[in-house]
Amino acid sequence: MSRFWSPLVHTLSPYVPGEQPKIADLVKLNTNESPYGPSPKAVDAIAAAAGEALRLYPDPTSTALRETLAAHHGVAVEQVFVGNGSDEVLAHAFRALLGHESPLLFPDITYSFYPTYCRLFDVAYETVPLAEDLSVRIEDYRRPAGAIIVANPNAPTGVALTRAEIACLLAEHPDKPVVIDEAYVDFGGESAIPLVADHPNLLVVQTMSKSRALAGLRVGYAIGDAALIEGLTRVKDSFNSYPLGRPAQAGAIASIEDEAFFQDSRAKVIAGRLRLVEGLEARCFSAPASSANFVFARHESRPGAELAAELRARGVIVRRFDAPRIGDHLRITVGTDGQIDRLLTALDEILG
Amino acid sequence: MSRFWSPLVHTLSPYVPGEQPKIADLVKLNTNESPYGPSPKAVDAIAAAAGEALRLYPDPTSTALRETLAAHHGVAVEQVFVGNGSDEVLAHAFRALLGHESPLLFPDITYSFYPTYCRLFDVAYETVPLAEDLSVRIEDYRRPAGAIIVANPNAPTGVALTRAEIACLLAEHPDKPVVIDEAYVDFGGESAIPLVADHPNLLVVQTMSKSRALAGLRVGYAIGDAALIEGLTRVKDSFNSYPLGRPAQAGAIASIEDEAFFQDSRAKVIAGRLRLVEGLEARCFSAPASSANFVFARHESRPGAELAAELRARGVIVRRFDAPRIGDHLRITVGTDGQIDRLLTALDEILG
Repeated sequence: MSRFWSPLVHTLSPYVPGEQPKIADLVKLNTNESPYGPSPKAVDAIAAAAGEALRLYPDPTSTALRETLAAHHGVAVEQVFVGNGSDEVLAHAFRALLGHESPLLFPDITYSFYPTYCRLFDVAYETVPLAEDLSVRIEDYRRPAGAIIVANPNAPTGVALTRAEIACLLAEHPDKPVVIDEAYVDFGGESAIPLVADHPNLLVVQTMSKSRALAGLRVGYAIGDAALIEGLTRVKDSFNSYPLGRPAQAGAIASIEDEAFFQDSRAKVIAGRLRLVEGLEARCFSAPASSANFVFARHESRPGAELAAELRARGVIVRRFDAPRIGDHLRITVGTDGQIDRLLTALDEILG
Repeated sequence: MSRFWSPLVHTLSPYVPGEQPKIADLVKLNTNESPYGPSPKAVDAIAAAAGEALRLYPDPTSTALRETLAAHHGVAVEQVFVGNGSDEVLAHAFRALLGHESPLLFPDITYSFYPTYCRLFDVAYETVPLAEDLSVRIEDYRRPAGAIIVANPNAPTGVALTRAEIACLLAEHPDKPVVIDEAYVDFGGESAIPLVADHPNLLVVQTMSKSRALAGLRVGYAIGDAALIEGLTRVKDSFNSYPLGRPAQAGAIASIEDEAFFQDSRAKVIAGRLRLVEGLEARCFSAPASSANFVFARHESRPGAELAAELRARGVIVRRFDAPRIGDHLRITVGTDGQIDRLLTALDEILG
């Protein structure tokens, strides 16, 4: 606390990211990173961007990257916004689109950054409980709302809505901004991007941190009607003209262009998820069907906190949220086959 | 305009950065970039960061970089904050420290992003006119204020206050946050960082975009009392946990550690500024004494808009601000000797 802080600062409750421990030989399954690394073409492009041209500011509009994303997703460049990770894109969306007189709605169990953004930007919100099976039910959103944000697949549950369900949600709220946060969509979900053409209230947010294994580069983006993108851009240009440096723009372009590597990576993660789920089920865990690169699993009898601590003692780090309804769940990132085996072996020891 | 925008978005007036034209053989003297390129060690560190580890999130606290900056500036790591360019650091400072009941004060002619931040964060402000000679006069700030921000050297004038003058400003406002924006301090100004130890209300902001020639990487930082840094960190962690990617953290560390390259670069820029000033004075321009990597010059008779257009027609781009009192000034970045000669040759043609 400090008398020099603006009054708002005293009221914030900052987001706490998953830890990045510096322990050798760690099986790090706590922050949903890709086990497979980025496209070698992206790596080469980043290395090539390391040079004398770094003395120059990057393109403040990231036009070449936005053109690449537009071509990839079949939209116009005016329908693409990029930012310093999808967290920054989401922050600008909360500021630009989600603050209205009626409350913003989002699930009670979802990405825990959402309420943090609401406090920062003074956005009124209400949470909508997930169903008993941890799914989002569209019909529960039939209530007064200023705007809606849903992570799809949801985090930390991994449960996805179909595109048809998202279309229903949009049809029921044509006058409200609806943001679909698709950080994990590439692992088996259906993207809502094809709905953008017919829904001027839809903004879809994606990231290059997960399926493209570029968490260390910081690139996220949003796709939506040009008017929504203009709103984001007005906020961005009131905050930071140059959110993406030259290495980030170059690496992101090369990653998007390497479709074969992307398809191979995500297929391997999806196969690993199956292996992980089968191993967990054989050890008396249950988990809702995951469309993400993680599994949200609960043991039939052992408390989550105890399991997380025991795993950690064996060099395996998973994420647990000390929150109502989900305190006994572990969010376990899909690793390599070797990492999955180390997790399962550790569980065998712990569970006796 | 869109009905989906939050009400605030309609009221913003986004900052407009200097253009980044894609014209071959351009003499680009409009955005105060370094003509000399970054440290080769920084380039190597960025290239080395392009690898498989990009799949992992970066350290959200940038601890290694903050330790390097702390050692370099002789402060504790808790006194250092880093961000995605000094623009993001400034944005967080406006949010965290500069919004109070009484208005924020800053010069009427200064970095034009300041009023933009004020609109984004709803910070009340008053501008304080520069003196006739375009200098900041500390005594003009003896008035009710919630906080103060001064760029030193000031932009776009290049005029610097001494450290003793900053100390006076701090002594006169011990209960108000005072931010000194030192984007250009390495070209001949006196940094206020030594005053941090005795002034818990002082935040000094610096950038690696200018004197360290890393505009394309996006790294800025702030140094101040640990309580001020904590305020910035609370806002940052409510906005984006990971503002600096792995290449940015690695490149910034290597740059700070290459003191010899840094000293050589800034000495060359300072020598180039002398050459530029002499050339301009010989062509009937006058400019206040610059402590920055640019000169803010006005011709004795020719309008600034005309000169900027004529220079542009000859492939030389400078920056002009269409604002009261300074519309006839050109802000000319110090280039290489060859670039300065091309500018002066173009002026000879224009001025006949």
